[in-house]
Amino acid sequence: MREDVGMPQLRIAAAQVNARVGDLAGNADLIVEWSRKAAEAGAHVVVFPEMCLTGYPVEDLALRESFAHASRRTLDELAVRLADAGCGDVAAFVGYLDLDEVGPRNAAAVLYQGKVVAKQFKHHLPNYGVFDERRYYQPGTELDVVRLHGLEIGMVICEDIWQDGGPIAALGQAGVDLVVSPNASPYERNKDDQRLPLVARRAAEAGAPLAYVNLIGGQDELVFDGDSIVVTQEGRLLTRAPQFVEHLMVVDLDLPGTAPRTEGRFGEFDVRRVLLADDPLPAYPPQPAPPIAEPLPEEAEVWFALVTGLRDYAQKNGFRSVTFGMSGGIDSAVVAALAADALGGGAVHGVSLPSQYSSDHSKDDAADLARRIGAHYQVQPIGDMVEVFVGQLGLTGLAEENVQARCRGVTLMGLSNQHGHLVLATGNKTELAVGYSTIYGDAVGGFAPIKDVPKTLVWALARWRNAEAEKRGEIPPIPENSITKPPSAELRPGQLDTDSLPPYELLDDILDDYVEGDRGYDDLVAQGFPAEVIDRVLRMVDAAEYKRRQYPPGTKITLKAFGRDRRLPITNAWREG
Amino acid sequence: MREDVGMPQLRIAAAQVNARVGDLAGNADLIVEWSRKAAEAGAHVVVFPEMCLTGYPVEDLALRESFAHASRRTLDELAVRLADAGCGDVAAFVGYLDLDEVGPRNAAAVLYQGKVVAKQFKHHLPNYGVFDERRYYQPGTELDVVRLHGLEIGMVICEDIWQDGGPIAALGQAGVDLVVSPNASPYERNKDDQRLPLVARRAAEAGAPLAYVNLIGGQDELVFDGDSIVVTQEGRLLTRAPQFVEHLMVVDLDLPGTAPRTEGRFGEFDVRRVLLADDPLPAYPPQPAPPIAEPLPEEAEVWFALVTGLRDYAQKNGFRSVTFGMSGGIDSAVVAALAADALGGGAVHGVSLPSQYSSDHSKDDAADLARRIGAHYQVQPIGDMVEVFVGQLGLTGLAEENVQARCRGVTLMGLSNQHGHLVLATGNKTELAVGYSTIYGDAVGGFAPIKDVPKTLVWALARWRNAEAEKRGEIPPIPENSITKPPSAELRPGQLDTDSLPPYELLDDILDDYVEGDRGYDDLVAQGFPAEVIDRVLRMVDAAEYKRRQYPPGTKITLKAFGRDRRLPITNAWREG
Repeated sequence: MREDVGMPQLRIAAAQVNARVGDLAGNADLIVEWSRKAAEAGAHVVVFPEMCLTGYPVEDLALRESFAHASRRTLDELAVRLADAGCGDVAAFVGYLDLDEVGPRNAAAVLYQGKVVAKQFKHHLPNYGVFDERRYYQPGTELDVVRLHGLEIGMVICEDIWQDGGPIAALGQAGVDLVVSPNASPYERNKDDQRLPLVARRAAEAGAPLAYVNLIGGQDELVFDGDSIVVTQEGRLLTRAPQFVEHLMVVDLDLPGTAPRTEGRFGEFDVRRVLLADDPLPAYPPQPAPPIAEPLPEEAEVWFALVTGLRDYAQKNGFRSVTFGMSGGIDSAVVAALAADALGGGAVHGVSLPSQYSSDHSKDDAADLARRIGAHYQVQPIGDMVEVFVGQLGLTGLAEENVQARCRGVTLMGLSNQHGHLVLATGNKTELAVGYSTIYGDAVGGFAPIKDVPKTLVWALARWRNAEAEKRGEIPPIPENSITKPPSAELRPGQLDTDSLPPYELLDDILDDYVEGDRGYDDLVAQGFPAEVIDRVLRMVDAAEYKRRQYPPGTKITLKAFGRDRRLPITNAWREG
Repeated sequence: MREDVGMPQLRIAAAQVNARVGDLAGNADLIVEWSRKAAEAGAHVVVFPEMCLTGYPVEDLALRESFAHASRRTLDELAVRLADAGCGDVAAFVGYLDLDEVGPRNAAAVLYQGKVVAKQFKHHLPNYGVFDERRYYQPGTELDVVRLHGLEIGMVICEDIWQDGGPIAALGQAGVDLVVSPNASPYERNKDDQRLPLVARRAAEAGAPLAYVNLIGGQDELVFDGDSIVVTQEGRLLTRAPQFVEHLMVVDLDLPGTAPRTEGRFGEFDVRRVLLADDPLPAYPPQPAPPIAEPLPEEAEVWFALVTGLRDYAQKNGFRSVTFGMSGGIDSAVVAALAADALGGGAVHGVSLPSQYSSDHSKDDAADLARRIGAHYQVQPIGDMVEVFVGQLGLTGLAEENVQARCRGVTLMGLSNQHGHLVLATGNKTELAVGYSTIYGDAVGGFAPIKDVPKTLVWALARWRNAEAEKRGEIPPIPENSITKPPSAELRPGQLDTDSLPPYELLDDILDDYVEGDRGYDDLVAQGFPAEVIDRVLRMVDAAEYKRRQYPPGTKITLKAFGRDRRLPITNAWREG
């Protein structure tokens, strides 16, 4: 027995699962399956992520009455199914979409012994970054605390633990023995650094342990990383789930267990008590202390986020294979390695699309890459197509360069239409930010795996992935030559990226401050960047943003970090500096 | 003198102008120019639309501190410029972006005698449809009432008059002689039917006349129609501005004129009084009663909305000419007529892009159209390009059909890159809704003028525009044959739209209920549509939505009415029925 706990009174299971938006039947099956696992592990409570029954985010589906009704109906049926499956005595906390006379609700319910016994609506509705919840949901002010085995269990949904004050403070005043929190909190770099101190602070505020359960998986532009945790009211981390995998985290808790406490109004919240089972459980031997997963190191975390996003985008959309241009350069090489990790090398169909300006090393490096990852590979020269367009239309200069990229796009889409592959766009965040990309050309694709990855990080990821392979005694997926050679678009003889762009280290630094940091021209000058370079970069970003929004490429580009869109007007005359 | 008014005490001018987002300097010039016109017309007050100084909507620009600071600085300078221009004694109500310690604000200020003398922040922040104001702005609860010539003038910004209760009720309790309301209210079909009763109700609530001043012009996907009005507290319409044009509406008001009234708290609002000029004006002769513009009939209103949207998108983005595929069909014919009305026939560069499946009448009708509207016209057969792709890649069936559309897209983009034209996509709302369109093919373009127009309305608009021409003794722009022939994509021999789609009348009815009305499968069945057709249409819409979001076409498609986007997750497993 652990030294600082007495005899446990409650075993809780956090089901960190991968739900699929809109798939009520599939998600209900998932909840039954993981509740059964929780029951088999002897848990008395199982907690699922936010809106697990509908998937997250459902966006405008929240406004369809037929969908909200189906969500409620499925929830009622699920309570019965859980009881039929022998899990009725495990109190299941399940997020779903509700609808009442006030409007749609981001809701969570407690299912117990075949019935929906309690439900609660999210209060703080995030409406920034990737979130638009004030468009969709009405806030709730009622808190349902269930009494199970003599213990008072409250719940708060996601953003309600990120905002100061709010439901947690009310639960603390009303008195609870445990708080559970269903979440759908998207991955951001280093977000796990924020979660633990936050959850610890809220556990102290509640005066009770807090179980934070997060979704995993890719959903369109978002990736959820899991990283579920249980923290004591003193702020001690009891257990943490690994990132980016489905996982059942089971932990025994030693809780004080008190008499039923007050109902009524606390601040702006109404606390309701719901009795499920008054008597404490008989003493039982605790399971060994569960492991505490270490957060992944920086590059590994990003790599798994990208693999997860790509895998789930393809699978949830019903694609079994992907295709893209393999140029021999670093971007398409990293996309290929990600795709092989996500779907298997056999699902990857690389296409070399050489023009008259393509170097021999490009074709060699692409073929080498395909061999290393076990991908299908074919060569489709674009010379004949380009010649017809250029000759018939009399194209020169940039118009001629763009036609090359667009003939590649038409070729990939033709192969996609003929063979059913998902086309991947291989552009990185840096080149998309400065517009070093051809609309309807290399921007063609249904998903752009590294659109949120700056060029300098693309190289770092390539080196990290190769080093990992070497550690495991495997063949490094990415040819060394693709990492070390100077980058080139190869759209005219001898062209290099540095002909048009500042060095990537400097460029990525400025982009990070201008785009992520929302800094203005004067701030950037004060930070010591050369004024001439700032001026050039800002001009490129603004022009690219304008062009990209005018002719959107294959995938919505989020110039902000992972999944956060920059929403700028197209016909915008504002310029910095 | 009008029978029911005494001697006027105040002449107000409503400046219904076309601002440009981000263009602080240009908008400040615009405000000086129209204030001067108001001064020349003898007005004592001039009211500009919501956020006139920044343009509307500024989207993420609201979050850039450098932009907010520039907006405030420009406002201060504008007050001085107005005085220098001899308009200092005209109290100017000017919408702008403010920023304080709480956050960004959707604000309006009063400029008088060289100074910013009062300012107020919008309270109700719309966050539905095309609006995202809760992402950007913090709500205000202070109301500034200025006393000018012995009259108390309050202001409320846009949404604050659409919501029950709120600032208008507080102003009514506090007591005002006049309310002015700066607006940026986007065009929707038949919205003018709603505005007058709403404004009349609010005037009654305020116990004072209400001057409603709306923006005009196109801004990306939005079009603002003006339709500014002044209504007495009894609900009588005093004057209405014409739609879709810049206009200075000047009206003399006979107001009771009272002693200064109470300051302080009314409901959740703090009312502040600001003294500008206490003494009433000497008696002056009123101007003749201003005209009341009639709202435009249905087709005319839509036509001018489309022309305005296209004209401003091109001009605000710096394009002087447009190009697109002229197929001889109804869609490209209507786009051509719109473009000629917006930019002049000489700015239109039509391209016939025949394939082996194109009929002779297609080419004849396209050439006839170009002659009628005075457009440039060229023929670029796509046979040679298609042959290379199909032969080299071994494409068949749908993949082969799509390559034809994509060779047209590459051709138009090549001509655009070479000659600087804006490419227009000619797809209508019906075909985009059901996915009868090729991604990176006919969907290519920077702007899609009829993307929000259902096919049946495209025909109605064509007939209306031709009839208008005949009324004016001009050549009808659209060849009769383009209106009457059965629609065909001409991607295979003898193909007709009706091979793949239900009759357009039925299809548009179902789409209107499913997409605009958010009705579910069961509702549609109950409405009496054939179940088999509903099933087929819903399946097509869902599949198209999924494909379009995966491979966005040239322009953001708003399946909802004018400018309202449908936000559905891509990896969405929910299906109706």
